[in-house]
Amino acid sequence: MTTKLTLHHLEYSQSFRVLWLLEELAIPYELIVHSRDEKTMAAPDEYKALSPLGTAPVITDGELILAESSAIMDYILDKAPGQTLRPEPESPDRTRYLFWWHAAQGSMMPLQLMNVVHTISHKRLPFFMRPFIGLYVKGLDELFIRPRLNRMLSLAEEDLSCAPWFGGERLSAADFLIAFNLIAGAERGVIDATQHPNCTAWIAKMKALPSFAKATEKDGRPSMALSY
Amino acid sequence: MTTKLTLHHLEYSQSFRVLWLLEELAIPYELIVHSRDEKTMAAPDEYKALSPLGTAPVITDGELILAESSAIMDYILDKAPGQTLRPEPESPDRTRYLFWWHAAQGSMMPLQLMNVVHTISHKRLPFFMRPFIGLYVKGLDELFIRPRLNRMLSLAEEDLSCAPWFGGERLSAADFLIAFNLIAGAERGVIDATQHPNCTAWIAKMKALPSFAKATEKDGRPSMALSY
Repeated sequence: MTTKLTLHHLEYSQSFRVLWLLEELAIPYELIVHSRDEKTMAAPDEYKALSPLGTAPVITDGELILAESSAIMDYILDKAPGQTLRPEPESPDRTRYLFWWHAAQGSMMPLQLMNVVHTISHKRLPFFMRPFIGLYVKGLDELFIRPRLNRMLSLAEEDLSCAPWFGGERLSAADFLIAFNLIAGAERGVIDATQHPNCTAWIAKMKALPSFAKATEKDGRPSMALSY
Repeated sequence: MTTKLTLHHLEYSQSFRVLWLLEELAIPYELIVHSRDEKTMAAPDEYKALSPLGTAPVITDGELILAESSAIMDYILDKAPGQTLRPEPESPDRTRYLFWWHAAQGSMMPLQLMNVVHTISHKRLPFFMRPFIGLYVKGLDELFIRPRLNRMLSLAEEDLSCAPWFGGERLSAADFLIAFNLIAGAERGVIDATQHPNCTAWIAKMKALPSFAKATEKDGRPSMALSY
């Protein structure tokens, strides 16, 4: 890379994925860690102002400002000489990689986001509204969110029984992307060792990577995701 | 391609993207069109059974069953000789392409999905619960969904003032992916000509592509997305 990439890392956010990937690739980068507002746990205004979307993660590289986890990860992989984290079109792992690489953000994250938004919103309601809204949120979870999330987790269990990583035989960018979904899911009780033994074993394997220890040290927080 | 790809197209769904892309690339494929349940507008059980996720789109190709819009589109692009819809890493359009290619599903679709789910759920509630839930849904829309969607649309407006397509100077897969988001958004009144002149002009340009007329004819429906 001709310019030095800067990761604007927001604590307890999806930018942990990028931090972890950078440590895995051992690419030189500058790290700026931002804290959330202590009361609301929202991103601070100066973080929101970094990119037009106002969300984490954000990287800058010379004149470039780039948001969106997957776009940032593809950008970094483009610039990392000799990396092997993205199976090429002729690889037998290509289709499996493409599926999990896109499904993590396209199908799984939206369901997890809905859960988080409803949980936070419900807690902030005036107390007399909570029972009604609680019923509605519970209904949405049982009828829409949970069945879809369970189908994804069943498929993950099945796929991880055939090959060690989400992208197939080798560790890939799909693992670093979906790690946030699954580790956050495990911390929030959506994933457990009894129902999801393969996902649980995969999480342990991911956390045993030396890059996880390095990223965790730079992050400096006890967990990857916000707990509620 | 050695085997013939089959698109399992669900009416009024994201699989229109795949249908349109296949027509644009003029690749031979088999099309099976599935209708939604007339009362609930849900996908029929035989469609849900096609893939482990139970969602649209789904393609099959020999033994392969693949779900997830972006994964299917990347799979098709891998197999389409000489296609130019995916800027290569050395292209000056690469980063812009990566951003919109991933942001369409990673940031925009989740917000649009939340809106659709809330709108449908609210309509199905017992009448006495509607005012309370209506307040909650309105609050979520005003405080969470709408500001984020507006930021994305402002960025789209800005980017489309610098280059004609979402991926930059040339038509790309990002355009076929985000077309569903924007055309559905326009049909539901989220996008309008006064506030979003560039998006509106881009929609007209996309609909003027010969592949749109061909896809629309094969789809056989008056619109791309469900209206409420």
